[in-house]
Amino acid sequence: MHSDVAVLGLGQMGSALAAAFLRAGHRVTVWNRSEAKTAPLVAQGARRAASALEAQRSAPVVVACVLDYPALTEILDPELPGVLVNLTSGSPEQAREMAARTPRYVDGGIMTTPPGIGDERSMILYSGDQDAFAEARNLLFALAEPVNLGAEPGRAALYDTALLGIMWATLTGWLHASALVTADGSTAAHFTPLATRWLGPVAGFVTTYAEQVDAGSYPGTDATLDVHLATLDHLVHASEVRKIDPTLPRLFHEYARQAVEAGHGGDGWARIIELLRAKAV
Amino acid sequence: MHSDVAVLGLGQMGSALAAAFLRAGHRVTVWNRSEAKTAPLVAQGARRAASALEAQRSAPVVVACVLDYPALTEILDPELPGVLVNLTSGSPEQAREMAARTPRYVDGGIMTTPPGIGDERSMILYSGDQDAFAEARNLLFALAEPVNLGAEPGRAALYDTALLGIMWATLTGWLHASALVTADGSTAAHFTPLATRWLGPVAGFVTTYAEQVDAGSYPGTDATLDVHLATLDHLVHASEVRKIDPTLPRLFHEYARQAVEAGHGGDGWARIIELLRAKAV
Repeated sequence: MHSDVAVLGLGQMGSALAAAFLRAGHRVTVWNRSEAKTAPLVAQGARRAASALEAQRSAPVVVACVLDYPALTEILDPELPGVLVNLTSGSPEQAREMAARTPRYVDGGIMTTPPGIGDERSMILYSGDQDAFAEARNLLFALAEPVNLGAEPGRAALYDTALLGIMWATLTGWLHASALVTADGSTAAHFTPLATRWLGPVAGFVTTYAEQVDAGSYPGTDATLDVHLATLDHLVHASEVRKIDPTLPRLFHEYARQAVEAGHGGDGWARIIELLRAKAV
Repeated sequence: MHSDVAVLGLGQMGSALAAAFLRAGHRVTVWNRSEAKTAPLVAQGARRAASALEAQRSAPVVVACVLDYPALTEILDPELPGVLVNLTSGSPEQAREMAARTPRYVDGGIMTTPPGIGDERSMILYSGDQDAFAEARNLLFALAEPVNLGAEPGRAALYDTALLGIMWATLTGWLHASALVTADGSTAAHFTPLATRWLGPVAGFVTTYAEQVDAGSYPGTDATLDVHLATLDHLVHASEVRKIDPTLPRLFHEYARQAVEAGHGGDGWARIIELLRAKAV
């Protein structure tokens, strides 16, 4: 084995991974289905493998970042000698299936965009074979901070998806808020520093509510659902009079209304998780 | 005038305001519709006014925090000698009406809960008469950091509502994420530190997108709507198989789908603001 790590798949993200390994001084073998994408990495010092199989036999750790799980299955060496770290996007179910038929398997979820790879403030979530992870861990620091979520192979993919859900919620809430303030002549540039500062206290609420979620008890010590419902009226109204899509605030209003109607008006916002769990799909 | 500030309304929030002024060494007059609530503040050194009118004539700055704007209108001294700082919850429209008929009027939005009053990390938004604000400003530091949003009297209420909208979005996104991970045997306590850490990069995205919103141009340099749509499929699916209410992820999926269908698949998430603005109510 002439390399420290092999990278399978050189899309935007795979190329960023390979480049970060090279910058950290590792010996890197690269492979991509269409060969053209290997050239910039070879120019940076990578070795090009003639086949996916050759790449997988060139290093004790193989990092895969291909289109999807079926694409990986197609090229996977059935007698892979090393550790497989699969950073391909997929579901927890796919990660579990792959782990069941691949020895020394680690699944991962990349919580940054390609430009964030190689930045120690970024994080990549991992779960799966703990011995395999321990073997790869030092190498993985070249990409981002490795966050080990334990042996259950689907956990990294689940946390990845769950965190992206929080991202879409926050981004869309902020876009809705920006639509409101810009409708009245303000700018996103003026409003946004307050919005990002406000995420600090919101993170504090979330930390408090995490204990409530695990305890299954949601005391409204900071603000009750009765109060939330009244202030949600303002948000729905402010959206309507400015002709901003009120779907998002109406959804929150509906959750609060249902919880209040069920007799939980004195509880806090964390009570809403019971509604999310109870909903028929 | 024997006091520095008068506080009208001693609900949970009004009482916290009066107590913070007292702790900062100011002379405080208090008034509440039902007299019983004045006792704890009188015990802390406040003077009790026999009427709302008397309170308003006792100090150069009057801070109001009553049930709603009509309740304030009812008790307001038509010849109020001082500055009125109105921290009562209301809409931008109500703030503008009040400003139109009240000289030296400042409207405010309190971005914390009663226990956060007196903490310099908390913020209170103000807008309205700038001379009046300048006169009250030093006093207002006793409550929280005063953030001056300028002369347009409705702006504090609008920003307040908009920021709460971001809060509900983030809290509900986090609850949905917590429902997902706890369905697979994880705990909110394990997941949440990663979620709050993740809000850091999300705040970074928001800061980048703020420029895009003001420019009306949404290049998908970090992640395109095509990519978001594919990963939103995972979130909707993960919700459905775990019987978690998929309404929120389906809404984001629908926004992304519409934007992609309209030919914006290469743009970033900030493009969604155009959909929010275009929606009929």
